Amino acid sequence: MNDTNSAVAPPTGGPADPAANDGLVAANRILADQGVLDGYGHVSIRHSRAADRYFLSRSKSPAIITAEDIMEYDLDSNPVDQQGRLMYIERHIHGEIYKARPDVNAVVHSHSPTVIPFSVTTVKLRPICHMSAFLKNDVPNFEIRDCDGMTDLLIRNAKHGAGLARVLGSSNVALMRGHGNVCVGADIMTAVYRAVYTEVNARLQAQAIALGGPATFLAPEECELITGRRDTNFQRPWAMWKSRISIK
Amino acid sequence: MNDTNSAVAPPTGGPADPAANDGLVAANRILADQGVLDGYGHVSIRHSRAADRYFLSRSKSPAIITAEDIMEYDLDSNPVDQQGRLMYIERHIHGEIYKARPDVNAVVHSHSPTVIPFSVTTVKLRPICHMSAFLKNDVPNFEIRDCDGMTDLLIRNAKHGAGLARVLGSSNVALMRGHGNVCVGADIMTAVYRAVYTEVNARLQAQAIALGGPATFLAPEECELITGRRDTNFQRPWAMWKSRISIK
Amino acid sequence: MNDTNSAVAPPTGGPADPAANDGLVAANRILADQGVLDGYGHVSIRHSRAADRYFLSRSKSPAIITAEDIMEYDLDSNPVDQQGRLMYIERHIHGEIYKARPDVNAVVHSHSPTVIPFSVTTVKLRPICHMSAFLKNDVPNFEIRDCDGMTDLLIRNAKHGAGLARVLGSSNVALMRGHGNVCVGADIMTAVYRAVYTEVNARLQAQAIALGGPATFLAPEECELITGRRDTNFQRPWAMWKSRISIK
Amino acid sequence: MNDTNSAVAPPTGGPADPAANDGLVAANRILADQGVLDGYGHVSIRHSRAADRYFLSRSKSPAIITAEDIMEYDLDSNPVDQQGRLMYIERHIHGEIYKARPDVNAVVHSHSPTVIPFSVTTVKLRPICHMSAFLKNDVPNFEIRDCDGMTDLLIRNAKHGAGLARVLGSSNVALMRGHGNVCVGADIMTAVYRAVYTEVNARLQAQAIALGGPATFLAPEECELITGRRDTNFQRPWAMWKSRISIK
Repeated sequence: MNDTNSAVAPPTGGPADPAANDGLVAANRILADQGVLDGYGHVSIRHSRAADRYFLSRSKSPAIITAEDIMEYDLDSNPVDQQGRLMYIERHIHGEIYKARPDVNAVVHSHSPTVIPFSVTTVKLRPICHMSAFLKNDVPNFEIRDCDGMTDLLIRNAKHGAGLARVLGSSNVALMRGHGNVCVGADIMTAVYRAVYTEVNARLQAQAIALGGPATFLAPEECELITGRRDTNFQRPWAMWKSRISIK
Repeated sequence: MNDTNSAVAPPTGGPADPAANDGLVAANRILADQGVLDGYGHVSIRHSRAADRYFLSRSKSPAIITAEDIMEYDLDSNPVDQQGRLMYIERHIHGEIYKARPDVNAVVHSHSPTVIPFSVTTVKLRPICHMSAFLKNDVPNFEIRDCDGMTDLLIRNAKHGAGLARVLGSSNVALMRGHGNVCVGADIMTAVYRAVYTEVNARLQAQAIALGGPATFLAPEECELITGRRDTNFQRPWAMWKSRISIK
Repeated sequence: MNDTNSAVAPPTGGPADPAANDGLVAANRILADQGVLDGYGHVSIRHSRAADRYFLSRSKSPAIITAEDIMEYDLDSNPVDQQGRLMYIERHIHGEIYKARPDVNAVVHSHSPTVIPFSVTTVKLRPICHMSAFLKNDVPNFEIRDCDGMTDLLIRNAKHGAGLARVLGSSNVALMRGHGNVCVGADIMTAVYRAVYTEVNARLQAQAIALGGPATFLAPEECELITGRRDTNFQRPWAMWKSRISIK
Repeated sequence: MNDTNSAVAPPTGGPADPAANDGLVAANRILADQGVLDGYGHVSIRHSRAADRYFLSRSKSPAIITAEDIMEYDLDSNPVDQQGRLMYIERHIHGEIYKARPDVNAVVHSHSPTVIPFSVTTVKLRPICHMSAFLKNDVPNFEIRDCDGMTDLLIRNAKHGAGLARVLGSSNVALMRGHGNVCVGADIMTAVYRAVYTEVNARLQAQAIALGGPATFLAPEECELITGRRDTNFQRPWAMWKSRISIK
């Protein structure tokens, strides 16, 4: 969804790091190419030199975003320089998570297809392989009815965004019932990696359930050993994912 | 299926709006690219200046339609100027829905693959996420046996088309048992959006069923709040979908 | 599998119709592009001017076949002019079906992925939508153990081919347990259409089963009304499928 | 995962056969294109003139590997000439299998998506069609907890690699719980063939299970007849798979 008006114009946090914004554009296109982002969904990064500012595209489908589309926001999700551009209504997802999570510098909101079914059932999404250990053993699920009763399910304001951030807590991923999910990370490669492998995990887990028989998930200790290591190596798939997209 | 003969040549409703017909060509190709339309299936729009005329391609697969293929019909589905072109036998789907639904200006008929299974079982297609709230909670299913007994399942005439329109009623989508579905809208973007997200919803719901456990569907009030809002924003995915197709 | 030697060189049935052989090349590439044929599998046509001869590619993957690869065989599957080319071991599928079925002029043998599971279970493949009415209500399943005990499952000789043709009987499609299927038709477009929609039907039926609830299949009378009509219109999807492939 | 340091520099086994290394590059790209290898995973070949050396890419995603990326290792997985390049941490998979299996000259390690679910359930992967007879009737499953207790699931050292090789035994394929699998062969075409059809078999078996009803798997005697024949014909799909990739 999009938005046109904004009363407040906060000052800029300073010029964007061009490489960081190129990475943000790549992230949008990579996640569209990988089938994680549909025509909706969005990705943001925190301003590298101003912790109270973040960058997010104008209202546009991730697959076709360019560097010119990137806008700067404060953490109340007011644009620094709107220039009449349409804005994502749901940008409060990003602002409120950056407020609540100083460790987070990148946020992906998607309608990742195989993850949505887990948001509407009582079956929990759980880490089934080492690539998705970051899910750990308690992926929270945001039920917007608990936050604001009957709504159109969009994160339309700071109240909704803060409610989602609260449910996310210190996790890496939160589901959103009947809507999608958010994946966060200390940097854009980590958030993108998590968005891709959250979808992969959902597919694998759904297939394991369909096979029948008891399933062995990662033990909490295995999750800790994996997420705690320093050689995360997210740049390896990133280089391959990037080779598949073209940025004009 | 196609048709070659027509006895009646009704007068034209006036020249077509070129932009509208370009949108109709794009809609055909978008829905083929998105996996909603197979080699069969078709999309129409009502004449923007003559409510008793509509535009529909000659008998041809949606993926390869061009502007030259678009023909004009009256609501009894007689061609204004056939020029010897083959016609879709099932064009009565379009004519009869336009007769029954003055609010509808675009109709998609597809064999959308994941939707067909819902047309043959007693399990109801229900809105599982906000993108598909337009399904509301009672998607009707047209059983042609109730309309005309044993047939070849095609909507071959006005009786079949009117029967389908009757079952569609005021809904946005109707299934057709063992055949496919129709999605309608006030404009082409809306009808295309609904065709895409009806397929998406079918996939998500099938996956949720396979996971097991009770599923939470959208509440009727949530559906109303979503379908009632003004910022529908169907142009966002449309721009991305269009960027994926080439029109010669 | 392939074969190199042949003792007998039968006379030719006369020069091939170039258009027919171009259609055979297109059929191979279309079925690979549509996901019906993997690296193995093959397609043949009967000689248009000699009912006791047929055309089939040398041993090569369908996706990369060219007109130069087409070879002529008699119905015992001896090559007219081998020129040292490798041959499909399983060519007896084609020869024996042409012997048994004078009405058949095109044969597709595939490992169509969603059809194989139906060949190993007791659940019958049944027509779920009008596009696949040609399946009728009794798709036979060839169990090679009944024909020749324990084998490597390949149709390695005339005995195996004749056994398969016997099980096929007058049907349009026969499954082959743990192996694949054959689809036949009076012409190449019909056989290709049936190969594509046999795979589609398998997907739809598998999804309907997974949804749960009783399923309504096509009634025998509906199948007869569909398969008996003259306006089959297989050229409509063929034109679209062909537009997706390039033939060098 | 990758690795940067190595204390030992063993002597080279002699210059690589350029054709063999081109085949290794092609194998990487083919398996990525076929959906078997994700951004991680790797493929190796034994040195054709030095049985105690093997070739493996530097740490890089298989889809984008070039001939310049290939490195030579001894069977303790020490690089002959590292040149500062990052190395796969899990290269011990390759070294330890080559030690244990003189008959093996190519190894694929993948996160083949549909195979992972079989590694976490009690449902056994079994050969469902003739193309996957090499699975025979007892695909072993490596549980790293049995080898080294709680770990990050990676094959980080010789102990893990040897444990995996021990579980693999004389089989062609071994699953790795919550991680992936290894496929081996006497040459690169065989190993690639097995990696592709292990994934295919997993899909077919999962679908057969979902259909319900008892399933007929290949009999042990059928597996022996298929794997024992000389006309394996793996070059047929290889040529087609190779035609789909471009190597720069």
